[in-house]
Amino acid sequence: MPTLSADDQRLLARRQSALGPSYRLFYDEPLHPVRGEGVWLFDADGRRYLDAYNNVPVVGHANAAVNAALIAQSQLLNTHTRYLHDNVVQLAERLRALFPAELDTSVFTCTGSEANDLALRVAQEYTGRQGLIITRHAYHGVTMALAQCSPSLCPPAAHVEVIDPPAFQGMDAQAAAAAFAQRVDAAAEALEARGTPVSALLLDTVFASDGVHIDAAPILEAAAQAVRKRGGLFIADEVQGGFARTGRWWAFGRESVVPDMVTMGKPMGNGHPIAALVLKTPLMEVFGKRCRYFNTFGGNTVSAAVAMAVLDELERMDAPTHVRRVGGHLQQALQSLAAQHGSITQIRGEGLYWGVQLQSGSLASAVVNHLRQAGVLISTSGPLGDTLKIRPPLPFETEHADLLAGALDEALRVRA
Amino acid sequence: MPTLSADDQRLLARRQSALGPSYRLFYDEPLHPVRGEGVWLFDADGRRYLDAYNNVPVVGHANAAVNAALIAQSQLLNTHTRYLHDNVVQLAERLRALFPAELDTSVFTCTGSEANDLALRVAQEYTGRQGLIITRHAYHGVTMALAQCSPSLCPPAAHVEVIDPPAFQGMDAQAAAAAFAQRVDAAAEALEARGTPVSALLLDTVFASDGVHIDAAPILEAAAQAVRKRGGLFIADEVQGGFARTGRWWAFGRESVVPDMVTMGKPMGNGHPIAALVLKTPLMEVFGKRCRYFNTFGGNTVSAAVAMAVLDELERMDAPTHVRRVGGHLQQALQSLAAQHGSITQIRGEGLYWGVQLQSGSLASAVVNHLRQAGVLISTSGPLGDTLKIRPPLPFETEHADLLAGALDEALRVRA
Repeated sequence: MPTLSADDQRLLARRQSALGPSYRLFYDEPLHPVRGEGVWLFDADGRRYLDAYNNVPVVGHANAAVNAALIAQSQLLNTHTRYLHDNVVQLAERLRALFPAELDTSVFTCTGSEANDLALRVAQEYTGRQGLIITRHAYHGVTMALAQCSPSLCPPAAHVEVIDPPAFQGMDAQAAAAAFAQRVDAAAEALEARGTPVSALLLDTVFASDGVHIDAAPILEAAAQAVRKRGGLFIADEVQGGFARTGRWWAFGRESVVPDMVTMGKPMGNGHPIAALVLKTPLMEVFGKRCRYFNTFGGNTVSAAVAMAVLDELERMDAPTHVRRVGGHLQQALQSLAAQHGSITQIRGEGLYWGVQLQSGSLASAVVNHLRQAGVLISTSGPLGDTLKIRPPLPFETEHADLLAGALDEALRVRA
Repeated sequence: MPTLSADDQRLLARRQSALGPSYRLFYDEPLHPVRGEGVWLFDADGRRYLDAYNNVPVVGHANAAVNAALIAQSQLLNTHTRYLHDNVVQLAERLRALFPAELDTSVFTCTGSEANDLALRVAQEYTGRQGLIITRHAYHGVTMALAQCSPSLCPPAAHVEVIDPPAFQGMDAQAAAAAFAQRVDAAAEALEARGTPVSALLLDTVFASDGVHIDAAPILEAAAQAVRKRGGLFIADEVQGGFARTGRWWAFGRESVVPDMVTMGKPMGNGHPIAALVLKTPLMEVFGKRCRYFNTFGGNTVSAAVAMAVLDELERMDAPTHVRRVGGHLQQALQSLAAQHGSITQIRGEGLYWGVQLQSGSLASAVVNHLRQAGVLISTSGPLGDTLKIRPPLPFETEHADLLAGALDEALRVRA
């Protein structure tokens, strides 16, 4: 394994001293990028890396149109939502146009964590209940309330019931949906028995930290019906799956389900901290009677301008169509690799979000580090860390998919 | 009361439709600003308003140096802290230099809410306890955990004990400190009796939402001693008081106390969403053993560049000295008004954070709306809304203080 430069070793020591033990770095040899452009990152030595990992810069690193909007509004005015301003209203209207009619109210926050945390508060106020159903290795954010329902971070709290994520490939679609709905129902029953009936089912619609499970079966629809029958709400966490990532504006759109609330974040500002909760008006009316909600930076004039520029860019490139085209190409390349490499046990995903499950977590880690040395950036996912996580900026083209597949082919030949 | 223009009426209706009932506006006639510059806001008709309210744009609206840093780094690279990068390390080192030596570790978030929420998580993990002591009308943020300890938003939870804020003007300093410490001790005892011993005392160091109480007595020091004697930590919430607002870098610096944790937010990025928790390393070591913490946008390359530019600007203007000078002038002007207007019952504050208590909440509201029509922006605070809240961007000069005092004089003559 190559060693860090003397400069980077000094920086690493200073980092550990000033940031403390909660900060982690990717890769055995950490990457030190200094510049980004489209799907590329460049390190301090000018070496370039194909970014097949970062979903936040959804319209590409250092996107010029997004930066132009950021600059123009920052030079005019950055202020909060307790003054009248066009930007936050326009952004809310543009989001609303991307959802089924019932999802007509937007509340802006700075992070997906804040959006998910608010969704839980609304669910609790609306239902008068505390219980929560999530998947086994879910990750929903970093606040105290979310850490309690993010088993990939911390053990779940007593009011949280954990169910297995869907993993039904090859199974009949209706039977798969019924099986997942049955898990939701059993979890709701367990919560009732514990005296904390269910307020909501909270699902990452691509099940990213569970290892990426995007199934053809109508499992979200069946799960939503099951939780509603028990008096709970269905919250779609689209922080990972949203903004055309799967070839649809929202990952829940692969089914006919309409969630009660949808949260979004990471790619919304292409790196600028903006996130949102989009929900049915009656829910916010009940919440608003009992609680105020004001987020100092959420939906400020600059954040709203940036988020609109990201929507402009996604629309300009017709992101859903682009993602389906390049994603289809990537899927074929990955399937071709799976036919050659017995070390690949399963491929799951859609559009430009893929999980490539390998025989072990140690192999996945070796492959990720090999690729980093070969100039291609990905990471791992799943409870055992055995799944390669691939989710590039959306300007990813078929040539980049081929480059990634070629490097992965070589990594598997060397490491498996 | 003047009515909104037809354009603004349409915008208001669209806003209510798209943003829902949790969004509120300031003033009987909402303000529609379109441009900011220094301490001035300009509305759609080109009318200018003296901003004596907004603490977020701490180095002035549309600050050119901060925007230059924002633009330069956005055009290079915006990425997270799991890659090596100089910016987040440099920012942590610069923050550390502004604190007593024990406060040597920084964790970056996007909002003061996220910083306070993390502080509570660290306190609970470190002490193995849940209980919390706060003041009666405290506001600490919008997450579920913080709403439970922000009585100005929602009723407090069962593990939260509420004490009266300090209000000891005229009392002997040592007696005042002892009285406040006694409240902390009694609250800790009550929490123990309820089976939820205290993990932390969380105090806004300027007691902003309690009505602005900045006392000469060493109350923070005495309170910290009292909670530590009971096994709890002292968290200084500097989201309102930090970054030279009171004429010191941190409001807790008016005493000799060293908090166990300090949170900061609002002014840190002059409007860009960045916030931080600064704490003693051993606390984060205990937390880090049990929990990971990763904030996608927190401390990203752009946010860190912006926060450093804000520190540069504060240092360039020697903000603490400037604030003491202009704040002293403002204090004299307010005291002179109090001598003329019986409707002013008390003046509290320091530097450029002042609370002017009036005879009633309805008078305070009338004065705030009168000033808005006169082109001067302030708001109200305190449990009864009877306290005028004055906290301008720090480039506020003595001439602006005179303008504010003149307008306030007239408003009190007309409205009281």
